[in-house]
Amino acid sequence: MFITFEGPDGSGKSTIIKRVFEKLSKEGYQIVLTREPGGTPIAEKIRDIILDNANQELDARTEALLYAASRRQHLVEKIWPALKEGKIVLCDRFLDSSLAYQGGGRSLGIQNVLNVNLFATENTYPDLTLFFDISPELGLKRVNQDKKRVADRLDNENENFHDKVYEAFKKIVDDNQNRIVTIDASKSIEEVTENAYQIIKEKLNGLR
Amino acid sequence: MFITFEGPDGSGKSTIIKRVFEKLSKEGYQIVLTREPGGTPIAEKIRDIILDNANQELDARTEALLYAASRRQHLVEKIWPALKEGKIVLCDRFLDSSLAYQGGGRSLGIQNVLNVNLFATENTYPDLTLFFDISPELGLKRVNQDKKRVADRLDNENENFHDKVYEAFKKIVDDNQNRIVTIDASKSIEEVTENAYQIIKEKLNGLR
Repeated sequence: MFITFEGPDGSGKSTIIKRVFEKLSKEGYQIVLTREPGGTPIAEKIRDIILDNANQELDARTEALLYAASRRQHLVEKIWPALKEGKIVLCDRFLDSSLAYQGGGRSLGIQNVLNVNLFATENTYPDLTLFFDISPELGLKRVNQDKKRVADRLDNENENFHDKVYEAFKKIVDDNQNRIVTIDASKSIEEVTENAYQIIKEKLNGLR
Repeated sequence: MFITFEGPDGSGKSTIIKRVFEKLSKEGYQIVLTREPGGTPIAEKIRDIILDNANQELDARTEALLYAASRRQHLVEKIWPALKEGKIVLCDRFLDSSLAYQGGGRSLGIQNVLNVNLFATENTYPDLTLFFDISPELGLKRVNQDKKRVADRLDNENENFHDKVYEAFKKIVDDNQNRIVTIDASKSIEEVTENAYQIIKEKLNGLR
């Protein structure tokens, strides 16, 4: 079972995925918690190029191709082997983030970025995707309040970029209702975590 | 005018492209001689990941995506600006090498690799491509005689790989007769250089 957590910056999903992981692990589920580049050395090297503030010349299409390359390596080395062993994989961001950030935010087009990613993933989609829905304004407000975070190249984008990302996410959710469930992420972390946990449990129990 | 030199390893094209460049430069043409990754820092970093012998886990699709990413950056930073200035660009390997090596050699399929590359190049094709035709056997024999070359990850492939690359090149030539001209590369370097020079002159003079 392959489950992805998606949403704009500041949606809280990275905190929530850890809590859900702990809850399910205590119940005895075999779970792999991961996020791109997933700790695979090659994918890490690719990611370094993308996020390095020195690479200001990085073109949007180059960026999209590098994300797809990193995703491929993460799939091959980590996600597919775990799924093959029957484990549950919880992944913080995956395909839909590329569609939203590069397809929408960078205006490359969702379908164009999808095509490149389907080459990378050999048409692998998550079984379930939780979309943590938060407005760009509130999301960015939360990010800015979080002093521990160091800004990377993607954080340094203007508000228009984040609006386009959000619009794209909404369209992706609309077009993929078979696998994406929207969760109101403006609520407290405790409430959102409980909500995410319940939806995953329903999926694991075959009720979704 | 965008002209690419393509062919199997050992076809002599890297020597020939330099000689043609010198000949045309002396005649007063404004020419940029380049090869991927083209000296652009980001593309170099991407190329380092591909060719590093340490990266044995590198998946074939990751490799194809990285080549496309490197190509994109090379186009944006070097090839397109030169073409915009009205210069002639001579490029040692481009799109067709990916189609042959990853599409054919790695069995990913020519059309699949083409789709990813058309995303990278925004449908940019060379105006003219010279295919330096040499059998894999003779090509590899020449490579092995050349002691100056240090083997990289791609050189360390078995013969079957190079046979598949060659077959793919032949198919690509067949399918792109509008832009690809085949040159017999089994002849002497002097003869092949003269042949390549003549074809390019015809193109520059509007006779092709």
